[in-house]
Amino acid sequence: MEIKVINFEEKFSKFSERFSPKIIAQMNDYHFKLVRSFGDFIWHRHPETDEAFIVIDGNFQIDLRDRPLHLKAGDMVVIPKGVEHKPYAKQECKVLLIEPAGTPNTGDAGGELTKTDLEWI
Amino acid sequence: MEIKVINFEEKFSKFSERFSPKIIAQMNDYHFKLVRSFGDFIWHRHPETDEAFIVIDGNFQIDLRDRPLHLKAGDMVVIPKGVEHKPYAKQECKVLLIEPAGTPNTGDAGGELTKTDLEWI
Repeated sequence: MEIKVINFEEKFSKFSERFSPKIIAQMNDYHFKLVRSFGDFIWHRHPETDEAFIVIDGNFQIDLRDRPLHLKAGDMVVIPKGVEHKPYAKQECKVLLIEPAGTPNTGDAGGELTKTDLEWI
Repeated sequence: MEIKVINFEEKFSKFSERFSPKIIAQMNDYHFKLVRSFGDFIWHRHPETDEAFIVIDGNFQIDLRDRPLHLKAGDMVVIPKGVEHKPYAKQECKVLLIEPAGTPNTGDAGGELTKTDLEWI
């Protein structure tokens, strides 16, 4: 594996699709993915894994069943496995996801927003 | 596990020691750790795991045996397992480390900079 410094903004400049995670790095069997979020995603959970979110730019919301989490650039949160959540962004924001390779973006909910065969950028 | 939004700068305000990683979050069996780097760390490698570095603030250097890597805020790099590296910072910088819980900061090199029983903040 080539060792390369990765700049988040440079990677974001390579795509404009929303809710379409792109893989930028791998650590053991985990992927680092960048995603542009805008509007409502769907309620879902990951039965097998925790999932980490780091906000790179903008404001990001993750609704839990009992309350919303409000994140801004420089914030992170770990959603434990099995916990239902729904990402939301009033305005487009840029987020870094860290989770095991192959974790589906829609968890156990599936549906038309499901992305498979994620692109490396 | 309580689900809490974590702000990097707020966590950095809780400590001033250098090269003393503090744990801020756990994802499965991985820890997210904040560290203030300044000056030369030591050459070491992690025989069992890759290690991810994300620069939160400042400029950070990771020397490899064949070249230096230069990182700034908004950059990340994954150092593959087994690869010798030496962190360095001309001026203090703030870094987020992601690696399996229990990964020693000095890898297989040991020595007086080794930190065990890392504090959660």
